Amino acid sequence: MEALFPFPKPTHFSSTTNLLTPPKPTFASSTKVRMSLQENGPSVAVVGVTGAVGQEFLSVLSDRNFPYRSIKMLASKRSAGRRFTFEEKEHVIEELTPESFDGVDIALFSAGGSISREFGPIAVERGTIVVDNSSAFRMDENVPLVIPEVNPEAMDHIKLGMGKGALIANPNCSTIICLVAATPLHRRAKVLRMVVSTYQAASGAGAAAMEELELQTREVLEGRSPTCKIFNQQYAFNLFSHNASVLSNGYNEEEMKMVKETRKIWNDKDVKITATCIRVPVMRAHAESVNLQFEKPLDEDTARDILKNAPGVVVIDDRASNHFPTPLEVSNKDDVAVGRIRRDLSQDGNLGLDIFVCGDQVRKGAALNAIQIAEMLL
Amino acid sequence: MEALFPFPKPTHFSSTTNLLTPPKPTFASSTKVRMSLQENGPSVAVVGVTGAVGQEFLSVLSDRNFPYRSIKMLASKRSAGRRFTFEEKEHVIEELTPESFDGVDIALFSAGGSISREFGPIAVERGTIVVDNSSAFRMDENVPLVIPEVNPEAMDHIKLGMGKGALIANPNCSTIICLVAATPLHRRAKVLRMVVSTYQAASGAGAAAMEELELQTREVLEGRSPTCKIFNQQYAFNLFSHNASVLSNGYNEEEMKMVKETRKIWNDKDVKITATCIRVPVMRAHAESVNLQFEKPLDEDTARDILKNAPGVVVIDDRASNHFPTPLEVSNKDDVAVGRIRRDLSQDGNLGLDIFVCGDQVRKGAALNAIQIAEMLL
Repeated sequence: MEALFPFPKPTHFSSTTNLLTPPKPTFASSTKVRMSLQENGPSVAVVGVTGAVGQEFLSVLSDRNFPYRSIKMLASKRSAGRRFTFEEKEHVIEELTPESFDGVDIALFSAGGSISREFGPIAVERGTIVVDNSSAFRMDENVPLVIPEVNPEAMDHIKLGMGKGALIANPNCSTIICLVAATPLHRRAKVLRMVVSTYQAASGAGAAAMEELELQTREVLEGRSPTCKIFNQQYAFNLFSHNASVLSNGYNEEEMKMVKETRKIWNDKDVKITATCIRVPVMRAHAESVNLQFEKPLDEDTARDILKNAPGVVVIDDRASNHFPTPLEVSNKDDVAVGRIRRDLSQDGNLGLDIFVCGDQVRKGAALNAIQIAEMLL
Repeated sequence: MEALFPFPKPTHFSSTTNLLTPPKPTFASSTKVRMSLQENGPSVAVVGVTGAVGQEFLSVLSDRNFPYRSIKMLASKRSAGRRFTFEEKEHVIEELTPESFDGVDIALFSAGGSISREFGPIAVERGTIVVDNSSAFRMDENVPLVIPEVNPEAMDHIKLGMGKGALIANPNCSTIICLVAATPLHRRAKVLRMVVSTYQAASGAGAAAMEELELQTREVLEGRSPTCKIFNQQYAFNLFSHNASVLSNGYNEEEMKMVKETRKIWNDKDVKITATCIRVPVMRAHAESVNLQFEKPLDEDTARDILKNAPGVVVIDDRASNHFPTPLEVSNKDDVAVGRIRRDLSQDGNLGLDIFVCGDQVRKGAALNAIQIAEMLL
C-alpha cells in the first residue's frame, strides 16, 4: 500500500491505546524544530486536558507548530497539580475556575456540555475566544458552527486581538467526517437527501470508553464476564445502537445532531437527512456509509476527481485490490478517507452515489477541526 | 432484560467461539427426549459438516427434532475418518463422492460454491433433494430461492418421496436477515426502494475467519502484529469493506446478492435496492441498517405491530432504556430481531421507515433457513 498519510503522531500521558493503534514516535525521536512558542502568538488554554480530545489538542498543537505565546492546562480539581512535559517544558494542570481565563486569547474546550455551558460564557466575558467541542452551543443561532474546509465564512466576523470574546462551536464528530467528504459533491450537484449509517468507535465516548473496550475484550477472551461501567452492555465483539438518549421521534441525539448540524453548516433548511448511529468495537476512528441523492447529475468518475482535489480528503478506492478506507488506516491521520465511490443503482441516471467514509474521531472529528478553527483566527 | 429467546443451543466439536458467545449446555445436560430418529423419516446427508454452518446444521436438526431416518456426515478427504458423537450415536465423517448420495433423500450443502456446482447436479441425478447454502444456483431461474417465512410457494412443486431430485437454494445470509424483517412491511405498504448498510460478523467467512478474529485480537492486545491469513488486513478492532470481489459497477458481490436475490424472492424486478456491505469485528451475528421507501403510507406504530406478529421476528425496540437489537443478543437464536423502528424524517409523511435488524448469520442466515426448507418437504 502506498503511504497515504503523514507519519503517526505522538500522544502524551495516555497509555491506553498504544497497543491498538499504529506505533507512535516519542518526542525525543522527532527531528522537528520547535517553532510555536512565539512572543506575539496568542495565549492558549486547553480545557479538559486529561481527556482523549484534550490530549489530542496537545498533539495537534505540536504537530502543526501552532504559534502560541503561552499555554495553560486546565482540568477538574481531581487532576489539578498533576505534572507532565509538553514540548520540552514542564506543565502543571490547574483547576478550571473563572479566573483561569484572565489573559487567555483562545480557549479550546473539550470537557463536556455542562462545563462548556458554565465556563464558556465566563471565558467570553473575559475576552477569550472559545472553540468549543461540546454540543452546548452548536445550535445557538449566534454561534458559528464551523468546519474549516466547508464553511469558513461563518466565522468571518470573529477576529483575534479585537479584545472581544466569542464562541465558535466545533460540530459533532460524525457530522464533520461526513461533511468533509459530502460537501465537495454537494457544491457540484446539490445534495437533496442523505441516508447515513455510522460505525462509531469507542473514542467518541472518551478515554474511559476506550479503556473499557480493551478491558472487556481481555475479559471475554479469558472467559470472564465483561466489566460494564461506561456502557450498559457488552461492547467487546458486539455492537449496539449509539448510547445517546433516544428522543420521542425515535432518533437518538447523535442522529439528530447530524440532521440539524448539517442543515446549519450547509445553510440549507431543506436538505433531507436520516441517520442510524451505531457503536462498533473499534478504538478511535469512525466510519460512515453515506447514500447521496443529488439535484443535478454527477457521475462517479467526476465525483472521484472532485474528491481527489478536495481539502482534507484522501481517496482510497482501489476496487481491484479491494482496498478501501478503514478506521485503522485513518487512525492518527488528519484526512478523511473516502472510497466505495459508485453510482447508486437504486436511483435514476447519475442522480445518486454511495460512498464510504472513515475519519479519526479524536483528530479531525474533534481536536484537529478545533485547532484549524483557531488557526483561522490568527 | 426479559428473556426474549429460547435457551442457547449446543454445538459440536467446535471449540473456537465458546468464550465469545453465550454459554452453551452440553448434550448430557439437556432433558429433551430424542424423537427424531424415525423409521419413516427421510435419510439426510450433511455436506461440509466440519464447517461453521455444517456444525450448525447438526445443532438445528437436533434442536428441532428433525425426524431423519439416518444421517450421513460428509466432508473433504482431509476430514474423512474423523469420529464424533451426535445425538448419542457415534458418526464417522465420510469423504464426499458421487456415491455418497445413493439412498439420500435430502442433502444439506454448505461446502462452498464449487462443491455445490460439482456435486449438486450429481446428487439431483441420484434422486436427492439438495438444499444448497452456496451462491451456485441462487440466480438459476429453475431453482427456487426460498425463505420459508417469505416465499414458501416458490417450492410448492418440489415434494419428497416422488423419487425425483431437485435443487433448492438458500439465500445469502444478509438477504435472509433483511427480508425476514422487511417482507411483512413490504406486504402491507410495498417497498419501492431500500438502502441497506450491513455490519457483518466473522462467521460469514467461515469458522477459520472466526478463529482469525480471536487470534488477531489476542495478538493486538499483546502488542504483536496480527496474523492475516483469511483477510488481507487487520480485523481486530477494525472494520473493512466486505472481502467479496468488487464488480465493474463498483458494488461487491455480497451487495449485488442482496439486490438480485431480493428481486427474485419478492418476484419484483422493479424494486430498487442499494447496499453497502461492511465486515465488523463481531463473531457470529449480522446487523443491518435498513432504510425503506414505501408506495403506501405506513406509520411506525402500525409497522411495529406488524413486526410483532410476523413469523421469525422478535421486536426489541425499547427507547426509554436504549435497548435495541445487538449481534450478541441474537447469537444462537432463531429469530431475527428488529428495532429502531421509526418514521424516516427525510421522506414525506409516512412513506419511509428506518429499522435496525440483527440475526444470527450461522443460524437463520444459513443453517436454520435450510432446515426450515427441508421441513417443508416433509
